[in-house]
Amino acid sequence: MNRKWTQPEQMLLRMTNDFTDNEIAPFDLQIDHEGKLPAGLFDKLVNTGFLTMMLPEEFGGAGFGPEITAAVIERIAQGNASVAVTLEGHFKTLDQFLKYGTSALKAKYFPTAGERIFAFSMTEASGGSNPMGIQTTAVRQGDGWLLNGNKVMITNGGLAEVYAVLAKTAPDELSVFVVDKDMPGFQFGKQEDFIGLRGTPVGEIVLTDVYVPADNLLGKVGDGPMLGDSAHDDARILMGAVLSGIMTHALNLSVTYAKERKALDVPIGQLQIIQHKLANIAMSRDTTQLLYERAAYLKATQQPYSEAATMTKAYGSRTAVAAGDDALQIYGGYGYSREYPLAHLIADARALEIAEGTVEKMESAIALAELGKA
Amino acid sequence: MNRKWTQPEQMLLRMTNDFTDNEIAPFDLQIDHEGKLPAGLFDKLVNTGFLTMMLPEEFGGAGFGPEITAAVIERIAQGNASVAVTLEGHFKTLDQFLKYGTSALKAKYFPTAGERIFAFSMTEASGGSNPMGIQTTAVRQGDGWLLNGNKVMITNGGLAEVYAVLAKTAPDELSVFVVDKDMPGFQFGKQEDFIGLRGTPVGEIVLTDVYVPADNLLGKVGDGPMLGDSAHDDARILMGAVLSGIMTHALNLSVTYAKERKALDVPIGQLQIIQHKLANIAMSRDTTQLLYERAAYLKATQQPYSEAATMTKAYGSRTAVAAGDDALQIYGGYGYSREYPLAHLIADARALEIAEGTVEKMESAIALAELGKA
Amino acid sequence: MNRKWTQPEQMLLRMTNDFTDNEIAPFDLQIDHEGKLPAGLFDKLVNTGFLTMMLPEEFGGAGFGPEITAAVIERIAQGNASVAVTLEGHFKTLDQFLKYGTSALKAKYFPTAGERIFAFSMTEASGGSNPMGIQTTAVRQGDGWLLNGNKVMITNGGLAEVYAVLAKTAPDELSVFVVDKDMPGFQFGKQEDFIGLRGTPVGEIVLTDVYVPADNLLGKVGDGPMLGDSAHDDARILMGAVLSGIMTHALNLSVTYAKERKALDVPIGQLQIIQHKLANIAMSRDTTQLLYERAAYLKATQQPYSEAATMTKAYGSRTAVAAGDDALQIYGGYGYSREYPLAHLIADARALEIAEGTVEKMESAIALAELGKA
Amino acid sequence: MNRKWTQPEQMLLRMTNDFTDNEIAPFDLQIDHEGKLPAGLFDKLVNTGFLTMMLPEEFGGAGFGPEITAAVIERIAQGNASVAVTLEGHFKTLDQFLKYGTSALKAKYFPTAGERIFAFSMTEASGGSNPMGIQTTAVRQGDGWLLNGNKVMITNGGLAEVYAVLAKTAPDELSVFVVDKDMPGFQFGKQEDFIGLRGTPVGEIVLTDVYVPADNLLGKVGDGPMLGDSAHDDARILMGAVLSGIMTHALNLSVTYAKERKALDVPIGQLQIIQHKLANIAMSRDTTQLLYERAAYLKATQQPYSEAATMTKAYGSRTAVAAGDDALQIYGGYGYSREYPLAHLIADARALEIAEGTVEKMESAIALAELGKA
Repeated sequence: MNRKWTQPEQMLLRMTNDFTDNEIAPFDLQIDHEGKLPAGLFDKLVNTGFLTMMLPEEFGGAGFGPEITAAVIERIAQGNASVAVTLEGHFKTLDQFLKYGTSALKAKYFPTAGERIFAFSMTEASGGSNPMGIQTTAVRQGDGWLLNGNKVMITNGGLAEVYAVLAKTAPDELSVFVVDKDMPGFQFGKQEDFIGLRGTPVGEIVLTDVYVPADNLLGKVGDGPMLGDSAHDDARILMGAVLSGIMTHALNLSVTYAKERKALDVPIGQLQIIQHKLANIAMSRDTTQLLYERAAYLKATQQPYSEAATMTKAYGSRTAVAAGDDALQIYGGYGYSREYPLAHLIADARALEIAEGTVEKMESAIALAELGKA
Repeated sequence: MNRKWTQPEQMLLRMTNDFTDNEIAPFDLQIDHEGKLPAGLFDKLVNTGFLTMMLPEEFGGAGFGPEITAAVIERIAQGNASVAVTLEGHFKTLDQFLKYGTSALKAKYFPTAGERIFAFSMTEASGGSNPMGIQTTAVRQGDGWLLNGNKVMITNGGLAEVYAVLAKTAPDELSVFVVDKDMPGFQFGKQEDFIGLRGTPVGEIVLTDVYVPADNLLGKVGDGPMLGDSAHDDARILMGAVLSGIMTHALNLSVTYAKERKALDVPIGQLQIIQHKLANIAMSRDTTQLLYERAAYLKATQQPYSEAATMTKAYGSRTAVAAGDDALQIYGGYGYSREYPLAHLIADARALEIAEGTVEKMESAIALAELGKA
Repeated sequence: MNRKWTQPEQMLLRMTNDFTDNEIAPFDLQIDHEGKLPAGLFDKLVNTGFLTMMLPEEFGGAGFGPEITAAVIERIAQGNASVAVTLEGHFKTLDQFLKYGTSALKAKYFPTAGERIFAFSMTEASGGSNPMGIQTTAVRQGDGWLLNGNKVMITNGGLAEVYAVLAKTAPDELSVFVVDKDMPGFQFGKQEDFIGLRGTPVGEIVLTDVYVPADNLLGKVGDGPMLGDSAHDDARILMGAVLSGIMTHALNLSVTYAKERKALDVPIGQLQIIQHKLANIAMSRDTTQLLYERAAYLKATQQPYSEAATMTKAYGSRTAVAAGDDALQIYGGYGYSREYPLAHLIADARALEIAEGTVEKMESAIALAELGKA
Repeated sequence: MNRKWTQPEQMLLRMTNDFTDNEIAPFDLQIDHEGKLPAGLFDKLVNTGFLTMMLPEEFGGAGFGPEITAAVIERIAQGNASVAVTLEGHFKTLDQFLKYGTSALKAKYFPTAGERIFAFSMTEASGGSNPMGIQTTAVRQGDGWLLNGNKVMITNGGLAEVYAVLAKTAPDELSVFVVDKDMPGFQFGKQEDFIGLRGTPVGEIVLTDVYVPADNLLGKVGDGPMLGDSAHDDARILMGAVLSGIMTHALNLSVTYAKERKALDVPIGQLQIIQHKLANIAMSRDTTQLLYERAAYLKATQQPYSEAATMTKAYGSRTAVAAGDDALQIYGGYGYSREYPLAHLIADARALEIAEGTVEKMESAIALAELGKA
């Protein structure tokens, strides 16, 4: 908020706004209806350099920090949230490579990060809640590891080509391995048919005796839970930005309609009950924005940001669903139609009450953080 | 609640339960995905006699009263809400024929009511809120009337064959005419693509110089607003039953899942936060059920039921959407998938915060009723 | 609702309305400010026969059933909730005597029930939630029992003269004993200074080697938990009636003010946002009323009523606090003043989110009931 | 948040924390029970220099800006909200003198501002909502004005010695005059008996032919409505800080209790439903804090802050009441007792849903701001 953007950051924002207005926003409804990005959009994202904007320059990136990265995600989400979520899933994975990858791993994978999507895969069909319930195994074989198991509901699953995979390396030990879709034994499984974020593929990968070389271990053996938490935190900041973008979209639509639509010859924006809804949308958007900006600032300044990131998504997802619902009600019957974007805004936001930790788990995490203070 | 069903009523309920279990529930997801009823279902509804169950026996019906009719609607909605809404739209229209139709009109139309759907059409594109903004006109011609105009967002529009149409008969005068789809000048217009209740067609009719004979006037000239209110009231009771059925569906699904699904080896139904959601769903269902039963009882005993009916839908629609949301969250990622019915339960319920009077308008109506007492 | 009152019931309701209007309502604010009933009111309750209205005639009562008893409590609560709660605490205790008392116990105590308040005491300072944490003990001595321990937060504690006391009779065994304030070793302890229900004394009793004869055992040895649940259920129905009465009070005040008070020359009752609040109050009142009537009907007809009773209080207490808050906001600055009753209505209702089982515990109980069905 | 405090600001915060811990917090319950500040506290506030901390040094103040001023108010509110509100009412009035006062007026009044409380008085008994309904009049007399009328519900009314008074100078013209309690014809009227903020006197002033010299006009003739809005904005930022302080108080109490109190041998802080409440309190506090910090930053940097200030109070007051309610419920029966501070935290926060513009009016203002953009 009270952060002054640098010259390159301002240019990036302008470019992002243009890209959103021209390449994303016009296809928003189409993405929802067809359940995929329009032809060519992914290539444009690649060509514009979005995929490596947050990688340091030494690794071929543009070196943008957490704050401007979140701001870019927010603006893209104003056009279509699933495009933003696809980037978020990629960025959160790159973040773990940056934090925990060896030089060798970075040298091996970052050169392709501008063209290939990276994904982080934790969940299994038996339930995402219990890390120790993980059934994917990694067993030592020679210098490397042999991986077996299925990972489901992976953001960008099916689209991504590089996967950080949480696997059991001992009964009470979880570790993370980098798996490439071209490795023998790697297969794509079922793609989810979700109600929202329909431009973001979510799918399964099936690993059958996939041999992973030793230096594809991310972090150390046993780092799995810590890496999972770290990925959650990085994802949650950007998801706050996505939610803020969804709410700005809902607010813009609502303001426009409240000025045009009349009831008894008065624009409905003059009705108290409509104003109540508009105010709720605006307050929810602003508070979510302040939350993600705070978390991004803490991250940028190397301060602890886990609780701040968790609040961002917990609070933002609950309020964005409510804000979308207010917007739909302002539109009345039109809001209920698939020809208008209101309903899919709610569905998009709704994903984030579940993905990367349910609201309920995040609330417990926030409470534990508060209980642990002083 | 404390109403004892008669022998025929009990038989009807048993039959309805069987019909729902065998003919509707198995097709619930299919209806949502395909946006239409499965082949043959409509004919089965006709053949089983549902379409005239609430018509007096003298008019070829089964003579069931408002309370058992609502109970039947609730049970059908447990299988799929849009089947129940299609019946509701038909019944509310028949109710207006019963209350305000001449003997001639009844004699003419009731014999076909067991096979043909009747619909009540008020809304126009310029907005449903202002009765005096109606632009459809009915002009005297000979003994009859010449109707011109478009009606949109008609429940069962496109499926129904008989339409009660609100039209302007003088600058400040609205009246209702019965229009048959076979009349010259009658055309179907645009069908809506709504997010929920996808088995209930909602569409437009276009009237171009449609000649309507004099005895197709429903009620008296100028009765339009009163007839519209009456149709709202009758619809709202049954919509309360639909919402109660949706919530029972959500509750059953949630209870089943909360028993099966485990987190850390404990069924999630033992977690306090899941119990909180289950309790909310159950309380919302029970209160909505009590509200519609009260309204139906008042109607059955010839007492004023307008406020009670309005409360039923205002309260029921808000809580059913919240209850569906709780159920979705209990299911987590599966709840978010189109392969499970949770999301469409919310979408189905969401319609009823808008159709037949928005929640906001109903709240004002309730307040005015309270302000007008004693 | 659709229960027809008998002639004696109608007379009782008329009498109760008069009593409320003349003897209670005029003192409502005074009761809140002074923290006690006005002089003489308790004697009038006694003299009018309210204290034994629900006892069977064979025990000197008027023989009124659960439904009319709840209706009476509701009406009294419209005047002042704490008067109604004092009766509720008495009635719930009498109910346990009726259900579980021996003929000897009934013969001994019921003759005084028209003049002396009976109370049920479970809670101890260490926490009300864990029955097995109870530290009051009852040890066999001769034919009777010797009781030691402190009971706190007893509804009517300090006013009541007869106490049903939950005590530990073995490490895993709880039983209930009837203790009279005149027994040697009985002392009153600390009186609570609560924020609401200020006419209902809530206090502590201290038992030091109180000898209780054998026939003062209520139910059988080990029946403690079951008796506690039973007392909860009976209390919760009547608390639903209290909450309904509080909401009627709030609604009446709000309707009156919304007609009189003007903003920009228009009565505020014409403002949409005020109508929204009025509608919420009315819907919350009506649904709570339907819930307690249902529970009372189930009890009256010997059907299971535990879940219904629990819903009544869980739902009713949450919505009554919200309804009171809406009413306060309608009054604005006046609502915030101690010279108006709005604030104490909220405080009164707020007690019932805690007393006789917190909302959280009741929600778990409701969930378990639903999980246990079918 | 991401504002670095200067050395003097850090010293001020430390001093404020000490003052709050030693001089305010120990008297929190006493203030609530006695309805006034403890003897000597006001003098200590004066002596420590709090009353002029935000006045520029040229006027004898300490020259602290809007951000640190709000932070000081927040900390004081953690001890007792009414002490903070008394300062807030003083500061908002000084702010109007600073913005709109002539040099002469500043020279005349600022020298006493460190010892005397200043108040801004707009509301009249006929309703605060309609500026044109103001009945206090100011009529030209010689060089000055003759004021007549009553102002009610003035924050610090009775305690303050200098009043900015909104008066009608022509049928459609409102202006603001500075009135001193020592002027002939000035009288104190009724003091309010409010349910919360009981250390802040709220009262009436009665003006009977009070002669006010010409240079006691604040701003220009006709500036009344603009000055009122400006006072609202300045007040609302600080009220956001008060609400944030109340929530920190509630959070600290809740965290402490959730660690100590056990249910079934487990600290209740480990129960999911308690964690849910703790998380809600923490999120509400953090978002409110971010909102007031944003508004203060905008003010400090001479950017428009009206909408941001309004959001702060609208959002903060709603969530603080809910947060206080969560905290009370965590404490259970103790929360309901006047011996614990939980209940008065709710009552204190509740004032701010009404004072300085009701939530409803603020929501309309926010909506109009959004509708007015681009």
